[in-house]
Amino acid sequence: MRIVVLCGGVGAARFLDGVVRTVDDPSAVTAICNVSDDLSWHGLHVSPDIDTVIYTLAGLEGEFGWGLDGDTHTALEELRALGGDEWFTIGDRDLATHVVRSELLRRGGTLSEATALLATARGLTCSLLPVTNDPHPTIVVTEEGELAFQEYFVRRRSADTVTGFRFPGAAEARPAPGVLEAIREAQLILFAPSNPFVSIEPLLSVPGVRTAIATSTAPRIAISPIIGGEAVKGPAADMLASLGHEVSALGVARLYLGLVDTLVIDNADVGLVDDIEKLGMQTLVLDSMMRGRDGRQRLASEVLRTVAP
Amino acid sequence: MRIVVLCGGVGAARFLDGVVRTVDDPSAVTAICNVSDDLSWHGLHVSPDIDTVIYTLAGLEGEFGWGLDGDTHTALEELRALGGDEWFTIGDRDLATHVVRSELLRRGGTLSEATALLATARGLTCSLLPVTNDPHPTIVVTEEGELAFQEYFVRRRSADTVTGFRFPGAAEARPAPGVLEAIREAQLILFAPSNPFVSIEPLLSVPGVRTAIATSTAPRIAISPIIGGEAVKGPAADMLASLGHEVSALGVARLYLGLVDTLVIDNADVGLVDDIEKLGMQTLVLDSMMRGRDGRQRLASEVLRTVAP
Repeated sequence: MRIVVLCGGVGAARFLDGVVRTVDDPSAVTAICNVSDDLSWHGLHVSPDIDTVIYTLAGLEGEFGWGLDGDTHTALEELRALGGDEWFTIGDRDLATHVVRSELLRRGGTLSEATALLATARGLTCSLLPVTNDPHPTIVVTEEGELAFQEYFVRRRSADTVTGFRFPGAAEARPAPGVLEAIREAQLILFAPSNPFVSIEPLLSVPGVRTAIATSTAPRIAISPIIGGEAVKGPAADMLASLGHEVSALGVARLYLGLVDTLVIDNADVGLVDDIEKLGMQTLVLDSMMRGRDGRQRLASEVLRTVAP
Repeated sequence: MRIVVLCGGVGAARFLDGVVRTVDDPSAVTAICNVSDDLSWHGLHVSPDIDTVIYTLAGLEGEFGWGLDGDTHTALEELRALGGDEWFTIGDRDLATHVVRSELLRRGGTLSEATALLATARGLTCSLLPVTNDPHPTIVVTEEGELAFQEYFVRRRSADTVTGFRFPGAAEARPAPGVLEAIREAQLILFAPSNPFVSIEPLLSVPGVRTAIATSTAPRIAISPIIGGEAVKGPAADMLASLGHEVSALGVARLYLGLVDTLVIDNADVGLVDDIEKLGMQTLVLDSMMRGRDGRQRLASEVLRTVAP
């Protein structure tokens, strides 16, 4: 079964890991990855979501889901000692990833190629595609003004009240090679439990992607990143609130109307089933919190069982 | 006393360290540094000679004279693990130096500015000037063909027989700000014990530098990098031989005719005094091997004593 997984960062990486370890043929899984939180770090091209996916699928991810487990930060500390205002954490081993990627880009390669090279080097068995090879940043509009995504997310620790988003590169961004093909050929489309605004929406905003998903006849299943009114990780709940949405799986369901057939919600949210189904969206109620590696695989297999029993 | 020191790498850094720790006013010392062995390492601008000088003067240099003492190589090892052909060693702390320099250059700054910033950050008290801010690479002509300097020096471990050198950027290279002024105002010009071909000649080949030194009325003293027919460090002796020069301090003296008044030679080479002085060059015979930090200061103070007794 050809599966597409729409991916943001940590939650997506964990879910995708579960999917890849559940299916018979991981090479039939294509992860389409958000690149709108990419940043230039001292001239190096850093793709945090792609890296999180690669490290997680390689079993190398750090304690909090990003970076490499047990990595050191010698270069970073030295940069600080030299007077640098280093607010984005890059580990020493992690640095190698960004050096390899940046080198390939500088030589005229694409982010797709760099991603494939890094995924192969880490032994990944599924396909990993950046949604686009073009610049497609997320600008977070806050009460304090507009912020580049990592400024908002890392430097200011998601503390600003978000009033909107801009994707200034979206109109010009072309889907990376294979992205539309993967969606069109998919027999199952999964929305990983990622932030709808800053992980999934940047994917959908690349011309062609939203339509390809909206017109797909494959089952389309989203895992709600909101459980019991709280985000499992990150600022999704705060964003839902400040943007005037209901802070619940129902709020998520409304955002995905027309794109998703089934929303996977946690047992804690069973009370929302009727409201969600009234929207015309099915629900799948289960324990959707991924605890440890086993939890990833359990969630993935329960979701996959509904389409290929 | 305003002193200019013409500098290559390890030997120069050690001698300069002795000079700086001997003089009353280190801020009157200007080191003019070779940049012709600079390289691009995965897009980062590395200036090995400047870095060696900075690290050595900061008391941070590694065991063999380059890099930072006790540095780790985590990023490098990870690059190798990712399939990279890494033949140039960059440590993790060392990386920060190149990141800072490259960042400043990318933002339109000059190598002079990057060097000053790094020297200040490391607490240096003398002035450090790259001889030029323009690209000015050394090409080593060997029996196997032409090699970029670090290809010859590091990758191929100086194993090729050298038949000549090319400095393709020399004609267009402009002296960096302060270089000609420092030479013109110098009350003493010192040629550090560096390789005459690949450390000193690239300095002299920047338009204006050779003439400024040749016409200076200040005492000009060179420390021979050859002792007892052998190079203290590096391929200078092999180069003298393959290029048809006498492999001795006399060979060095001939190279520096018209530029140097006094050649400092080691006690081991006292037999060469007559031949060198016949060239019209004075000699200063002493223990010129720098052993440890004390040895640097001893050599520097013995040399300086001859001009300011």
